[in-house]
Amino acid sequence: MTHWVRFRNEAGVGFGRLEGDRIAVCKGDMFASPADTGDSVPLASVKLLTPTVPTKMLALWNNFRALAEKLNQAIPPEPLYLLKAPNSFLAPGEVIRKPASYDGKVVYEGELGIVIGKRCSAVSEADAPGFIFGYTCINDVTAAEIIQKDPTFAQWVRSKSFDTFGVFGPAVVTGLDPAKLSVKLVLNGQERQNYPVSDMIFGPAAIVSRISQDMTLEPGDVICCGTSVGVGSMKPGSDVAVTIDGIGTLANRYE
Amino acid sequence: MTHWVRFRNEAGVGFGRLEGDRIAVCKGDMFASPADTGDSVPLASVKLLTPTVPTKMLALWNNFRALAEKLNQAIPPEPLYLLKAPNSFLAPGEVIRKPASYDGKVVYEGELGIVIGKRCSAVSEADAPGFIFGYTCINDVTAAEIIQKDPTFAQWVRSKSFDTFGVFGPAVVTGLDPAKLSVKLVLNGQERQNYPVSDMIFGPAAIVSRISQDMTLEPGDVICCGTSVGVGSMKPGSDVAVTIDGIGTLANRYE
Repeated sequence: MTHWVRFRNEAGVGFGRLEGDRIAVCKGDMFASPADTGDSVPLASVKLLTPTVPTKMLALWNNFRALAEKLNQAIPPEPLYLLKAPNSFLAPGEVIRKPASYDGKVVYEGELGIVIGKRCSAVSEADAPGFIFGYTCINDVTAAEIIQKDPTFAQWVRSKSFDTFGVFGPAVVTGLDPAKLSVKLVLNGQERQNYPVSDMIFGPAAIVSRISQDMTLEPGDVICCGTSVGVGSMKPGSDVAVTIDGIGTLANRYE
Repeated sequence: MTHWVRFRNEAGVGFGRLEGDRIAVCKGDMFASPADTGDSVPLASVKLLTPTVPTKMLALWNNFRALAEKLNQAIPPEPLYLLKAPNSFLAPGEVIRKPASYDGKVVYEGELGIVIGKRCSAVSEADAPGFIFGYTCINDVTAAEIIQKDPTFAQWVRSKSFDTFGVFGPAVVTGLDPAKLSVKLVLNGQERQNYPVSDMIFGPAAIVSRISQDMTLEPGDVICCGTSVGVGSMKPGSDVAVTIDGIGTLANRYE
């Protein structure tokens, strides 16, 4: 397992492997034979950035059996997904902002994120794992009351694309078996979500294979695997943290 | 009026002003004080690229009165929009590809495209024109039978994000009054769409102002203003061209 992070310090933007409380600084391309520089910096001395710079972030809806059952939704025959706009991307430790233009409920959604490692198009489910670089934590923040506000057009993209609503990190972790992971979300010290990834309707290989039939996926692209039970709203002044053991904790404040 | 284009030739990727059958090559940032290099190249000697490299392409639905009336859709109280994925971006002259994974109708949608020139967030309608760099032609290609295929989730993003479905160009044109423009679409020599931009429900300034309340818009970002009557399907082997007088013609083959 390797924990890859991106960061900014006085030397600029860099990336490397997280090793305890230090980052082993690398150069080159995170996805294609990155090389050690030999330098390391203390984690505490840098600002963590989003672990990749995706060309796109896709997000699945209705991908967990427990939530589908609770909401009385049918199991979908294929992955149902939307895009979150790049202006929404937010790093660990940064502040999720309540939109000035919206007074309704803003909800957290703790999720597993797939990070693509190689360009892929129309790959089989058997081959898909070879195109997955690793996994990260996601908080798929959503202005929930916008989705069905207009009866003629479900506003999934808009509700999930406000600035700061696409939170991911702190690291992308390689060499994990996603089926063994659990996603936990803690709001102001209270656990609100804790669900097994194994309850997914479409697992990571199926998701990557199916979506790659529709569109080319690029290194660094992120696919949010959907959330399960326990979604709830955040009040300004809240602390929200998504933890996936083996990946880490994605902690942010909501204001 | 200036017609800005991006291109590739043996010297690499460049941009400049279209002047008759030549391009006056520029350097720097297209959106911030570009400088003439003094060189020019024949248009016929280069491959045109998409005129910008957007961080995102947004696309409006139900934004023309004539089409809303024909489809018996209510006039929406605010712009309804989705995102098209970056893998869909396609330049003038390139081939729009029928998805291998989909056998249903693929439709053209000729549209006006707004190109953002300055980062903007929460701008008023009065100030919005100052953030618009110019306008371009759009072919918002859509796998129409996917949109309502699943009764529980409208798949707008997926139906419009297949590789090659986000066609725009040939130029971004500054100094135009969009209200005076018409959008024409010709399929295999036959005019299929010809509608005035003035029939828009939300005009460019309103669109930019409203969307900027939700999300930050970046230089080069494209907003497809929606289409009007005359949408139809394309058979492989078709030639499709969107013409907006004052901007130019965006011509592509569909295979």
